[in-house]
Amino acid sequence: MMKDILENLMIEKITRNFLQAPHKRNKIHEADAELVDLGDERTEYLAITTDALVEEVDSGLYDDPFFIGWMLAMVNFSDLAAVGAEPLGLLLSLSFPSTQDESFTAKLTEGISAACQRLNTFVLGGDTNEGKELFLSGCALGRVPKESTMTRKGAQPGDKVFLTGPAGLGNIFAFLKLTGKNNHMKKSFYQPVARIEEGKVIKEFASCCMDTSDGVIHTMDTLMRLNRCGFVLYNDWDRIVHPIALDVCRTQNIPPWLLLAAVHGEFELLFSVGPDDVKKLHDEAAQTGWNPVLIGEVTSGRGVRIKVPDRFIQLDTAQIRNLSHTAGSEPERYIKELFDIARTAGIW
Amino acid sequence: MMKDILENLMIEKITRNFLQAPHKRNKIHEADAELVDLGDERTEYLAITTDALVEEVDSGLYDDPFFIGWMLAMVNFSDLAAVGAEPLGLLLSLSFPSTQDESFTAKLTEGISAACQRLNTFVLGGDTNEGKELFLSGCALGRVPKESTMTRKGAQPGDKVFLTGPAGLGNIFAFLKLTGKNNHMKKSFYQPVARIEEGKVIKEFASCCMDTSDGVIHTMDTLMRLNRCGFVLYNDWDRIVHPIALDVCRTQNIPPWLLLAAVHGEFELLFSVGPDDVKKLHDEAAQTGWNPVLIGEVTSGRGVRIKVPDRFIQLDTAQIRNLSHTAGSEPERYIKELFDIARTAGIW
Repeated sequence: MMKDILENLMIEKITRNFLQAPHKRNKIHEADAELVDLGDERTEYLAITTDALVEEVDSGLYDDPFFIGWMLAMVNFSDLAAVGAEPLGLLLSLSFPSTQDESFTAKLTEGISAACQRLNTFVLGGDTNEGKELFLSGCALGRVPKESTMTRKGAQPGDKVFLTGPAGLGNIFAFLKLTGKNNHMKKSFYQPVARIEEGKVIKEFASCCMDTSDGVIHTMDTLMRLNRCGFVLYNDWDRIVHPIALDVCRTQNIPPWLLLAAVHGEFELLFSVGPDDVKKLHDEAAQTGWNPVLIGEVTSGRGVRIKVPDRFIQLDTAQIRNLSHTAGSEPERYIKELFDIARTAGIW
Repeated sequence: MMKDILENLMIEKITRNFLQAPHKRNKIHEADAELVDLGDERTEYLAITTDALVEEVDSGLYDDPFFIGWMLAMVNFSDLAAVGAEPLGLLLSLSFPSTQDESFTAKLTEGISAACQRLNTFVLGGDTNEGKELFLSGCALGRVPKESTMTRKGAQPGDKVFLTGPAGLGNIFAFLKLTGKNNHMKKSFYQPVARIEEGKVIKEFASCCMDTSDGVIHTMDTLMRLNRCGFVLYNDWDRIVHPIALDVCRTQNIPPWLLLAAVHGEFELLFSVGPDDVKKLHDEAAQTGWNPVLIGEVTSGRGVRIKVPDRFIQLDTAQIRNLSHTAGSEPERYIKELFDIARTAGIW
């Protein structure tokens, strides 16, 4: 039996009282954005998703107002990207304390606007309140052709697993910021762009897709549970981990795979493709100017294993995921326990 | 020149950096929900809106978790009702402090679910976080035929002004709750239902529509600015104000019109109808079992005036609206200043 994920138990408590909408294509957990069917005569689903920046702001991990605004938009659009949707726009639900200075608000909205413009989309509307604490929530709306929708479900043993780009920048950003070591990095190395354009290509080929907003291992654990499958992850870190992140790993003595394990992901898309479609994927991707990064494969047995030269190392993905609930609010403890996991697993 | 509304100045600051989406039919302030055009081949707009419960919860005005959940859904669906939309569902963005007890969360979601079921609609999805403070935001999605969309714009001098039902329950609820006088009332006299069904009838006849979530006078002030018109409000309080609310007015010596002026509205729809359509409205409304309440008319001059037997009394609607920003967080001061306004205006 697989170990429970604390986050899932919480979500199940919240959603226990809710009925499944007959016009919603996906069930809970099954897609990054909800797919709403407007009727048989329509060739598209609406895709809709909501995401708030809470822990990232409360912890001080995000403190620059332009960056906070940028991220508020991107975390929402990333969920649209993971179902292959084209954005229609963003709604904002914002609450500011009465003491909030105006330059913060101005830079926040600049960041939101810049992120929308980067994706050729718009803020559609919103609600602003005065509350005790800063609270920032978004809701992104998009559409996707019914015939080529992606969800988190559909991975088959033998499928190859890809990322839209190398991983690890999000976790390196968080590591440097929360340990006070970010002074030597140029400020802007982490400003992710939701993979909307890539998502539209991927949706033609992928058997499943999910963004890596909570880290690659977290994403694999979720997909493994939904698809009743397993994953093998190649230990080819020079190719899988972003060069900037690898560089920090060397200087700070961090095992590169921990950049896939920690919870502050990087908004790439992780997706699986059947063996027959791999060449077509590469051809289509090349035409739009990007290279999918092969990181592993889907297996029939459960679990996430790292393939090292002589053997497979099984990861306790539930332990890794639950760490953000048990130690997530204490960065030093979180990092220490993650390092302990790496030592115990024997992959350094 | 009309006096500025502090809320509008804040909204303009927030939205200054945002571009108008070419596929959005309404501009800022022009509709309770945003109307999104999915293309010429579609006969419907998408309607989408977001609303958070912040001040109502922070102030203790809403403290029963089932009621909070009910209201979180209804405030959002009420915005859909005001554009005549049929709901597709609700998304939730919730944040709980780590100390939140589970029975609160369970009752909250029961309230949300009950409200959705009351309107034959569903929770579609959401996002849950752990934060410093309780934060509750919703986003409602719906659709409305393009040919009969309502917005806040379109009122013409000579139009008659209606409410979907008598006003004042929201403000009486707030008055009794915040002054500690609610012990003698049965608990459930205020549990509003978004006027979705009425909105679908109204949209065939109305020249403009807006919900009264911030009170009737507030709604009239907004519509007056958008439509460059004025309003006359009849002083026929026995018909316009809800009997339960009137009863409290008598025992507490409150001028009934203040129940239209104070900021905690009641989620009726306020709408205008051209003189030629009034009979058709009444006929259609009767068929679905409700009676529109005539409360006044649209005039060519600006301002909101109360018609008393011998004259018109001009209201300073900007002063009334701004009161919730200058004194809104101090209920006793707010009530005192509102009573002062009634005395100065000479309508008691």
